[in-house]
Amino acid sequence: MTQDNLTAVLHGINDLRLEQRPIPEISDEEVLIAMDSVGICGSDVHYLTKGRIGHFVVTKPMVIGHESAGVVAKVGSKVKNLAVGDRVAIEPGVPCYKCDHCKQGSYNLCPDMAFCATPPYDGNLTRYYKHAADFCFKLPDHVTMEEAALLEPLSVGVHACRRAGVGLGSKVLILGAGPIGLVTLLVAQSLGATEILITDLVQQRLDVAKELGATHTLLLNKEDAAEDIADRVRQLMSAEPDKSIDCCGAESSTRLAIFATRSGGVVVIVGMGPPEMKLPLFNALAREVDIRGVFRYCNDYAAALALVASGRVNVKRLVTHHFDITETQKAFETARDGLGGAIKVMIHVQARNTNNPVVF
Amino acid sequence: MTQDNLTAVLHGINDLRLEQRPIPEISDEEVLIAMDSVGICGSDVHYLTKGRIGHFVVTKPMVIGHESAGVVAKVGSKVKNLAVGDRVAIEPGVPCYKCDHCKQGSYNLCPDMAFCATPPYDGNLTRYYKHAADFCFKLPDHVTMEEAALLEPLSVGVHACRRAGVGLGSKVLILGAGPIGLVTLLVAQSLGATEILITDLVQQRLDVAKELGATHTLLLNKEDAAEDIADRVRQLMSAEPDKSIDCCGAESSTRLAIFATRSGGVVVIVGMGPPEMKLPLFNALAREVDIRGVFRYCNDYAAALALVASGRVNVKRLVTHHFDITETQKAFETARDGLGGAIKVMIHVQARNTNNPVVF
Amino acid sequence: MTQDNLTAVLHGINDLRLEQRPIPEISDEEVLIAMDSVGICGSDVHYLTKGRIGHFVVTKPMVIGHESAGVVAKVGSKVKNLAVGDRVAIEPGVPCYKCDHCKQGSYNLCPDMAFCATPPYDGNLTRYYKHAADFCFKLPDHVTMEEAALLEPLSVGVHACRRAGVGLGSKVLILGAGPIGLVTLLVAQSLGATEILITDLVQQRLDVAKELGATHTLLLNKEDAAEDIADRVRQLMSAEPDKSIDCCGAESSTRLAIFATRSGGVVVIVGMGPPEMKLPLFNALAREVDIRGVFRYCNDYAAALALVASGRVNVKRLVTHHFDITETQKAFETARDGLGGAIKVMIHVQARNTNNPVVF
Amino acid sequence: MTQDNLTAVLHGINDLRLEQRPIPEISDEEVLIAMDSVGICGSDVHYLTKGRIGHFVVTKPMVIGHESAGVVAKVGSKVKNLAVGDRVAIEPGVPCYKCDHCKQGSYNLCPDMAFCATPPYDGNLTRYYKHAADFCFKLPDHVTMEEAALLEPLSVGVHACRRAGVGLGSKVLILGAGPIGLVTLLVAQSLGATEILITDLVQQRLDVAKELGATHTLLLNKEDAAEDIADRVRQLMSAEPDKSIDCCGAESSTRLAIFATRSGGVVVIVGMGPPEMKLPLFNALAREVDIRGVFRYCNDYAAALALVASGRVNVKRLVTHHFDITETQKAFETARDGLGGAIKVMIHVQARNTNNPVVF
Repeated sequence: MTQDNLTAVLHGINDLRLEQRPIPEISDEEVLIAMDSVGICGSDVHYLTKGRIGHFVVTKPMVIGHESAGVVAKVGSKVKNLAVGDRVAIEPGVPCYKCDHCKQGSYNLCPDMAFCATPPYDGNLTRYYKHAADFCFKLPDHVTMEEAALLEPLSVGVHACRRAGVGLGSKVLILGAGPIGLVTLLVAQSLGATEILITDLVQQRLDVAKELGATHTLLLNKEDAAEDIADRVRQLMSAEPDKSIDCCGAESSTRLAIFATRSGGVVVIVGMGPPEMKLPLFNALAREVDIRGVFRYCNDYAAALALVASGRVNVKRLVTHHFDITETQKAFETARDGLGGAIKVMIHVQARNTNNPVVF
Repeated sequence: MTQDNLTAVLHGINDLRLEQRPIPEISDEEVLIAMDSVGICGSDVHYLTKGRIGHFVVTKPMVIGHESAGVVAKVGSKVKNLAVGDRVAIEPGVPCYKCDHCKQGSYNLCPDMAFCATPPYDGNLTRYYKHAADFCFKLPDHVTMEEAALLEPLSVGVHACRRAGVGLGSKVLILGAGPIGLVTLLVAQSLGATEILITDLVQQRLDVAKELGATHTLLLNKEDAAEDIADRVRQLMSAEPDKSIDCCGAESSTRLAIFATRSGGVVVIVGMGPPEMKLPLFNALAREVDIRGVFRYCNDYAAALALVASGRVNVKRLVTHHFDITETQKAFETARDGLGGAIKVMIHVQARNTNNPVVF
Repeated sequence: MTQDNLTAVLHGINDLRLEQRPIPEISDEEVLIAMDSVGICGSDVHYLTKGRIGHFVVTKPMVIGHESAGVVAKVGSKVKNLAVGDRVAIEPGVPCYKCDHCKQGSYNLCPDMAFCATPPYDGNLTRYYKHAADFCFKLPDHVTMEEAALLEPLSVGVHACRRAGVGLGSKVLILGAGPIGLVTLLVAQSLGATEILITDLVQQRLDVAKELGATHTLLLNKEDAAEDIADRVRQLMSAEPDKSIDCCGAESSTRLAIFATRSGGVVVIVGMGPPEMKLPLFNALAREVDIRGVFRYCNDYAAALALVASGRVNVKRLVTHHFDITETQKAFETARDGLGGAIKVMIHVQARNTNNPVVF
Repeated sequence: MTQDNLTAVLHGINDLRLEQRPIPEISDEEVLIAMDSVGICGSDVHYLTKGRIGHFVVTKPMVIGHESAGVVAKVGSKVKNLAVGDRVAIEPGVPCYKCDHCKQGSYNLCPDMAFCATPPYDGNLTRYYKHAADFCFKLPDHVTMEEAALLEPLSVGVHACRRAGVGLGSKVLILGAGPIGLVTLLVAQSLGATEILITDLVQQRLDVAKELGATHTLLLNKEDAAEDIADRVRQLMSAEPDKSIDCCGAESSTRLAIFATRSGGVVVIVGMGPPEMKLPLFNALAREVDIRGVFRYCNDYAAALALVASGRVNVKRLVTHHFDITETQKAFETARDGLGGAIKVMIHVQARNTNNPVVF
């Protein structure tokens, strides 16, 4: 095995460096992975430009990257589910397994979760990375490494739709047509939602949403009053949405979600907004509109993979840009500034399509 | 309004007659419907050939038919949701609204349910039929009367999949590729099931299932042992199904469903089998495989309509035969004997496509 | 039947008058009830002093009162569940039965609900009142009229605990030790909650809560910071509450509920607060703490009655004051000002204990 | 530490021996426990007399016992939740933590579960036993070792009631008044069930059930027809039970449970019956009565402990006999033959009350 382990390390605000790191040693239940593809997430950009998200603060150099896929290079002695050469998607968080949250099926709430590229844990935009074998998902031959990397945001969409209870005949309002809004759209469709209205401040993003199957789009202006937009949403859908999924997290979008949602419906909020918000809570309470957050995902990766592998969901349209790991700096600039209609920017640690039986 | 009200009346076993009946008078909350299309259900055939289903016994002449659609001809004084000329699908059961089951959202379990063509209640294979306005669903222009009539079996599929908890990435085993098995297949797909294996004793039916999107089919022989078939199911699906939906109701298929289902999964049984069965219950209990029945549907019609109207589900392939109401006898023979690959036989009370803006 | 139908009518802010009204005529599915006991609810006082609650505004004279019980004096021709002389508790809201909310088991969200003493519908602090027979609950002999009247607030507690998902071993935080806080406490106990901490600004109310079984009480000062109180709650309970039920509805209490609740837990808000609130929503979302409102109750009266009838819940301690209907003015003053440690003020339309086999 | 490690080992059918075993070495996440009290379970007796339960077969010597409590004698290097001297209840099964069942909160269905005294895993009727620290529950000072040992059957009752969805106002039918029937009764009460009818073939057991709070008891004869008993159950309860929990597992009791349960209700089956049963399945299916098994418990121990510690449930009445570990043979005979009205037989590895701050 080569000793090259080029790694993208965040040293501070806007200080992202490529440097060599030792190739990690694996334990009995881990695998070593030769990384192939790593997508850039909004949170990666946020750490780069702000150095923190909420109470997670980058206080020492941290490897970036967590939307990822690679090829198993070595397996621990107790690993049964994987073999060298297996192509895998990597679910980036490993919980403690033993607390009440873990035992009750909510491992995403585990207080001891080690999550890639969330301080103090290193991410995996690197040549060699080790991971718990049970959080690696072997890919069928026809699924590409890029699609595998996209399972990460897709799992957020799966978790959001499950938390919302999207189902047959659901009328869904999605706020925000960025990557998370778009994957939520794809998942909601695959769950039987029959009307999906998506909003954004940028027409270009709505055009992509329309292309991906949104039944309605609505371009918003920042000045529009939430109650007025809610009325327009209902007119366009010719019904009140019973599920609203806010993929922005801004106060204005959460307010809109509350006003627009049908009595007895659900507002799910994926985007992480400001610590404090002014909200028309009474309106939600008196109509029993439930408000639920989404924190990452939990038991959603297998479903996300099944959706892609079965062809029910096509995520390829989301990838707009490709860079080599040596171009990491430029890749992050593209993602940060949304250059060239950037939706999802993919970084290739291996030459593109090295590990794809089918060209992406 | 014409006084012709030709009506198909079941007088006894194999004694189905066409006769004139008075046009019904409507009350304040009812509508009169000029019937257009009525599908033949297995239960209609069962009443024709056996005179009973379970404890429901035909003891006096009963109008047959309940998979139906028509055009509103008159509206009661308190009806707000419909107007004369509206094209509607008819949900055929009207409950008491006031018992605990009704108030708790399970009106299908209402002991005072008046259900079309279930003794002692008349069905609606007739020219003019009255119905509770709130159980009529107005059709969008592009939905045909035949599709509207098919919402009835489709609603059974919706209810079955909801009872099973089919969702994203579900691996579903469907037993029986008759009309109910096929609509269940269509609904399971639209809910995000990613693997669906369907079984039958007849290859021709499996071919249709394959055409409609089943990922696996398995031809059974009556002599196969349930445990052996369960093994083959798991091999074919490369996983245990987590939801098994038995659309036969025979002892052999229920046994297979139990053996095949993953621990912690669900067996849903739609078909109505014999009063007593010999079952490997211990196997289900010790693996916490839940067993759930399906009795008609409840709050499922709107979702079924939305699935068809949105194009997520295409039910057209199910209709194999068309007859005029004057050919009712022949229509029932075709349905009863499965002549000519009959799946769903449709009876037209109006000339075909009279009320379809789009030709079926 | 006497023609006396003395009735308490709210004519405007602080303008409550006793006057004669005609005895109502019943329809086929209604009963006429000789009222016995009517409790005063916070909402009654609110209408008296403010003339409105949210968008419900008293614009014409309205009979007050809705926590009530009486004796059936006449039955409609189609009524089967009741007979003259039956002692009944009255669930005060009658929905349309036919909208989606009603059919799906959420009739409390019916937009056409006719609810006692919510404009424009009259209440039942009157001698003779008519009501839908299916919303009257026949009392076992040993249940008193006062207990029956108390089923109304108790049903709010039932609904709140059900919405919260209180169950075996739940650790419950209740904010506010007024009547709703206290009934919620009683219900939470009967559902298997093993730790219940209740807060209030008044020690006397906490003393009653302690007497009724709260395992912890915490006296708050208005100046306390929500995050600090949350810490004290966790210390006192030696665990984070997994269910928090806010029976105040003030911004400060909702903030506290969010900060105090365990990740993955539920905040239920019963009290109706101001239209807008400033909230630490991010804190709830990132820990998947769900926020749910309570609007009245739905399918909860039967359980509330069973709890009282079985002796699992004793509501008698809540009634602190008794008045005759002719003393209505004084009764409302007592309730409004919390005079003499008033918790629940009961108005007797009949001489006290007239219809109680057992003295209250 | 003494080297005495007297241990009860099952060598074959009716061949239970006391012998010395080495004191186990613990790993980093385990604790060594000086055992105090071990109750005898029906399954222990079954292994003794039959050598097997279902496909679990005793093929080599196996330590017996799994309803247990003790005192921590040594802690592994990574154990944080326990210290030497802590008194603990032992949840006897340790899963793999990493399979889908474990991650989804259903670790009781883990195929790699290591469960005390289920072949091939040793139990803990022994002086020194090692266990995963996260499956040991520290006891409050006032909970006795015997109560702690009883958490094991109590957890079965918790799991059964949770699977049944017992809640406020539930009307519960319990079949069988043995230890599991009795703990189910206690748990159902604590969850707000307001009517509980319990059946048995032995009047003495029903007397205990009555003493523990059953609202109705019904003595059965083996010859009674299930449908007739169902009628009597409904008459006695003056309503149909909405939850039936079968703690026998015999064909006759499962049949009764199906016939007696209200439409839309649930039949839960705890007892492990014969591999094949003849059942009136159609009756359950057509009324949407769900059938659910109970396999041990999952995330139920903490609730069981909270119920006992809070005083909501009193399990002391269940213990009818006490033996020293040296009297193991006699203890098993007493349990097996139900001598002297035996309900729960407790074996003391330490002198009784050695570790009880409060005398049992």
